[in-house]
Amino acid sequence: MLDDTVRNEAYRAAICDNPNIFAGKTVLDVGTGTGFLAILCAKAGASRVYAIEASDMAELATVTVHENDVADKVQVIQNKIENVELPEKVDIIVSEWMGFYLLHESMIDSVIFARDKFLKPEGVMYPYKCILHSAPSYSPEIFKFWENIAGVKMNTIGQLYRTKYTGKPEIMQIHPNNILSKPLEVFEFNTKDIQQESIRKITKNVQSECHKNGVVNGIALWFDVYFHAGDKPDIVLTTAPVMSPLQLTHWKQTVIILPFEKTVEKSEKFHYNLDISKSAKNPRHYNIELNILDPDEQSAMSTSEDKSREEFHVHHNDDSEYDEYNSGSDDNN
Amino acid sequence: MLDDTVRNEAYRAAICDNPNIFAGKTVLDVGTGTGFLAILCAKAGASRVYAIEASDMAELATVTVHENDVADKVQVIQNKIENVELPEKVDIIVSEWMGFYLLHESMIDSVIFARDKFLKPEGVMYPYKCILHSAPSYSPEIFKFWENIAGVKMNTIGQLYRTKYTGKPEIMQIHPNNILSKPLEVFEFNTKDIQQESIRKITKNVQSECHKNGVVNGIALWFDVYFHAGDKPDIVLTTAPVMSPLQLTHWKQTVIILPFEKTVEKSEKFHYNLDISKSAKNPRHYNIELNILDPDEQSAMSTSEDKSREEFHVHHNDDSEYDEYNSGSDDNN
Repeated sequence: MLDDTVRNEAYRAAICDNPNIFAGKTVLDVGTGTGFLAILCAKAGASRVYAIEASDMAELATVTVHENDVADKVQVIQNKIENVELPEKVDIIVSEWMGFYLLHESMIDSVIFARDKFLKPEGVMYPYKCILHSAPSYSPEIFKFWENIAGVKMNTIGQLYRTKYTGKPEIMQIHPNNILSKPLEVFEFNTKDIQQESIRKITKNVQSECHKNGVVNGIALWFDVYFHAGDKPDIVLTTAPVMSPLQLTHWKQTVIILPFEKTVEKSEKFHYNLDISKSAKNPRHYNIELNILDPDEQSAMSTSEDKSREEFHVHHNDDSEYDEYNSGSDDNN
Repeated sequence: MLDDTVRNEAYRAAICDNPNIFAGKTVLDVGTGTGFLAILCAKAGASRVYAIEASDMAELATVTVHENDVADKVQVIQNKIENVELPEKVDIIVSEWMGFYLLHESMIDSVIFARDKFLKPEGVMYPYKCILHSAPSYSPEIFKFWENIAGVKMNTIGQLYRTKYTGKPEIMQIHPNNILSKPLEVFEFNTKDIQQESIRKITKNVQSECHKNGVVNGIALWFDVYFHAGDKPDIVLTTAPVMSPLQLTHWKQTVIILPFEKTVEKSEKFHYNLDISKSAKNPRHYNIELNILDPDEQSAMSTSEDKSREEFHVHHNDDSEYDEYNSGSDDNN
């Protein structure tokens, strides 16, 4: 993840280009890993940084803190944040806690815990705001690929892959040209006041209008997080679709592949319902349900339990694995 | 693997652009997978194609053969080649059997078996010639990466990765600019006459001369395979270092990372010994031993069992995993 230069640079800019915010302040870094954010905070002038890491990475963080000559300011603590005691409350909490589509395998619960226990009332959260976006999308490589492989048709195999893909969200890069409507918010929250209860189950009717002709075969999700930058504009780390691989983060985009393709025209309505619910089995996992809606009826296109309903309903449960997508990869010919 | 367009196109050109070779001929495809090569042969005019596949992929191959309207010519047989009986000998054997650095997890033994049992004396092998190349190389991203991550030094972590990398060959892309000498052959063989015994253990003294100033921190390996094209020049599928990701195959290059970096100058000699031996435990795996040689002495720089020798000796055994390299990937910060 350290090779995600977009992410690294966003945090670096948010922290190091804002010495007025960090100078002389106490900071808590939740899940410091290699110590990266904690070290940036010390470099930005923080007087004291508590760097919490539950795993053995804490040892590496300690070494790296020394390597960067900030051992007098950064204290690495190997423990779960839930078991940590600090001698004081802190001015700032920094954390890179975001998972796929913001919430999947995220550490937000730990950040909320840390905030409630350790942040001063007037304290600042880094990042402070998060938005999850969504839009209908087209992933030509998933299915079109199989139509012609050096002159050989493999649609049947493509169909098998389609079945596989619709069983779980795909972590993949969507080109901006393959986003078919203006993105709409699924949800937004501030890390300063969000409660765990509020992100247990998120339901959203998304009423998109296509901004061009095309084909929809997925719903793409991505997020932005915002950092305060004093009197300058916020610094935004975005995981939105980008033209260049150089701008791509390791989160890429998350796509819920549909079991069908739908041709759409400019100005056509494309409505859907997203239900993102915390898994009962694993509190860091989420189940996603997607229902494509009839724009005129504002309800699922069919509510009876017949085949047509199933075709417009995608359910991803928490057993899904989040492999990254490699177009048509295969260990065979 | 089907998304390796360089590979697909080389086989397509070798087979379909040579109808004079395939027209009316009988063909055996060893390890057909999805049926890709067998279907190409039928399209090129083969009268009969035996497509052998041991795994359940054979079912997909059968479906794909029908999808391409060549079921009257291609017979898919689900079995190990060693257990197959055919009603006739064949004119041509096609196979895509190559593994990393040609031999690792390759199917060459099965191809040799098939040739000895099923190929007519005047028969043709596709591909017919294979060459393994090697050259001293530089992989800056493996270690240099850790010197400065958005202003944070992580050399200690980089050192840990160096230890990890030198434990096994890395499958990675080497830019042509980071190849420091003219590539030299490690070995070459013709698939028409190679014997299993000849590829049990391959030892080669490689006496490179650097063609520019630079830093060596690895030995890169890659292969070319050749296809007959009648009276036209051979068609060559190369896995050599390439400028563009579009030209890269899924084999990329294999790099034996050294535990040290050596600054070299133009015209400087860089000699090494490669020992590539079939694993006793797994006949499809190979062990690699690399010894950097003193160009003046033509022997290992130190032969005693002291520390200095260990520093110039890399041994990769068959327990090594062949993960693809992602620069600095990490599940933590």
